[in-house]
Amino acid sequence: MANIRDIAQMAGVSVTTVSRVINNHPYVSEEKREAVIQAMEKVNYQVNRTAVNLSQGKTHLIGVVVPFARHPYFGLLIEGVAKQAMERHYHFVLIQTNYEGSREWEALNMLKHKQIDALIICSRTLALDEIERYQQYGAIVVCENATGNQYVDSVYIDHYQSFTDALTYLHQHGYQQIGYCIGRQSGSNSYFRHQAYQDFLKRYPQQEFIFTDNYYFEDGQKIVDEIMQLRVKPDALLVSCDIVAAGIFTAVQNIGIEIPNDLALIGFDNQPMSKMMGITTFEVPIVTMGERLFIHALGEAETSHEKLAVTLIERKTV
Amino acid sequence: MANIRDIAQMAGVSVTTVSRVINNHPYVSEEKREAVIQAMEKVNYQVNRTAVNLSQGKTHLIGVVVPFARHPYFGLLIEGVAKQAMERHYHFVLIQTNYEGSREWEALNMLKHKQIDALIICSRTLALDEIERYQQYGAIVVCENATGNQYVDSVYIDHYQSFTDALTYLHQHGYQQIGYCIGRQSGSNSYFRHQAYQDFLKRYPQQEFIFTDNYYFEDGQKIVDEIMQLRVKPDALLVSCDIVAAGIFTAVQNIGIEIPNDLALIGFDNQPMSKMMGITTFEVPIVTMGERLFIHALGEAETSHEKLAVTLIERKTV
Repeated sequence: MANIRDIAQMAGVSVTTVSRVINNHPYVSEEKREAVIQAMEKVNYQVNRTAVNLSQGKTHLIGVVVPFARHPYFGLLIEGVAKQAMERHYHFVLIQTNYEGSREWEALNMLKHKQIDALIICSRTLALDEIERYQQYGAIVVCENATGNQYVDSVYIDHYQSFTDALTYLHQHGYQQIGYCIGRQSGSNSYFRHQAYQDFLKRYPQQEFIFTDNYYFEDGQKIVDEIMQLRVKPDALLVSCDIVAAGIFTAVQNIGIEIPNDLALIGFDNQPMSKMMGITTFEVPIVTMGERLFIHALGEAETSHEKLAVTLIERKTV
Repeated sequence: MANIRDIAQMAGVSVTTVSRVINNHPYVSEEKREAVIQAMEKVNYQVNRTAVNLSQGKTHLIGVVVPFARHPYFGLLIEGVAKQAMERHYHFVLIQTNYEGSREWEALNMLKHKQIDALIICSRTLALDEIERYQQYGAIVVCENATGNQYVDSVYIDHYQSFTDALTYLHQHGYQQIGYCIGRQSGSNSYFRHQAYQDFLKRYPQQEFIFTDNYYFEDGQKIVDEIMQLRVKPDALLVSCDIVAAGIFTAVQNIGIEIPNDLALIGFDNQPMSKMMGITTFEVPIVTMGERLFIHALGEAETSHEKLAVTLIERKTV
């Protein structure tokens, strides 16, 4: 059976280079990497990756925790993570939790048991102080404002500020019964949004309209059905994700509610769908956020906590 | 430091049970598993998972190759895989390829190097006879008709039949300039669809209309723009995925093309969006397909090749 020296000779590179390729070391030219891989293919050279990992203490796997893999927001985060992982010859283990705590424990235990090198938590249900105890086993990065926490890194957008900006914008356009639609009510990002709404209501008192458990396009129909049952109806909605806003936009079309006259909409994320439907929304750099989460997981970020900016995109629904 | 015997005593179970929990053995009651995990937590018992894997020759990780993780079709396949993986205490490594062959090689090499136990290929660009050489290292399952292949398993729907059914249905409803929209033109599933279209044109000669590279909602706009440039326009479109059909449905609304009078639409997959928009479509059991792919990857399926049935859902776009 060919050994590492044979491979090096066949590929015309040094033994060190072969070892670097086997160990996924980043500083190898694509050309040399290719030559080594071809030589290994040729002689059917088989690395026991688990054995290599054991000797290195590294798996080159990053865990990514998401509540729902098929939701477009998490889909774009995963795309960002995948982009960086591909460039750096890493792979990632996707852990879908459906917001069940036991699934998050499982992910934390994968870190503890050295099955992954680091863990990215895109959205969580466990308390942060439960999670941070596991940082002794590898880097943990969360996708929410964790400024001040010295155990986990974070990449986030300022949900309090963006919600306040959107509410003020709707108020300035004359809307007086403003509500909001969101996924779950618990969770750190939802907390900041709710705070922004409460503070706005203190400044401009009105009835409260909060629609929860909305994640997908079809939930737009559910929200419209709920609104139709209300005696006092909202005249504007802040919708925490574009796909739900698009669902509302579609659901009102056949029941005589005109957008933006009867109902204004502001979405979040600037997904392509909102562009085609002309929905006013916030541009959120989700793919970039995924990339930055990965960089933090690798310990290559310059600061522990990183805030990304969002921008209001004015279209036709306000 | 506590050893396996201490854990067993604390949890009130046998040493064998503790060992089974550590090794992810399926035949442990949830109750006992919970007790063992709690005892391990309590004494901070740390398993070196990589070492366990090495001794077992198993990683309890399954690789899943997808071209794009954020596409709703692949999102639902992943959801099916995740569902089974969760139940069986497995995890999966998601490998996004963007249809680059080198990424598929990387996935195959993960199998070869024992980083994963089996590989699910949801869509591929490499030749099947290149891929099947790797089945010596672990099970490989593809999501296309691979009947007759003795090296890889497959879970698939009959794209030739469903395309033929849809074309015949449109013909019976009086449409005479029928086209189709698809993702990429290469690939096994696309091949069967194209064959069905060609055979249909032989029976009912008309101009050919094929729109390629369509994956997302916004591609609906692109298709409509292309149609507006044509002198002879299609009067019906078969659209390989609902989200693109929904994009077409939205894009024609402001330019005076009426559905179904000027343009009929049949989508695929029966995504919630098609239901809300009233788009005629094929119900494809994508989540079930993901679950079955996982069962095949574990070697627990009764046959090597498994065909799933699809059903036409008649709505308002034909």
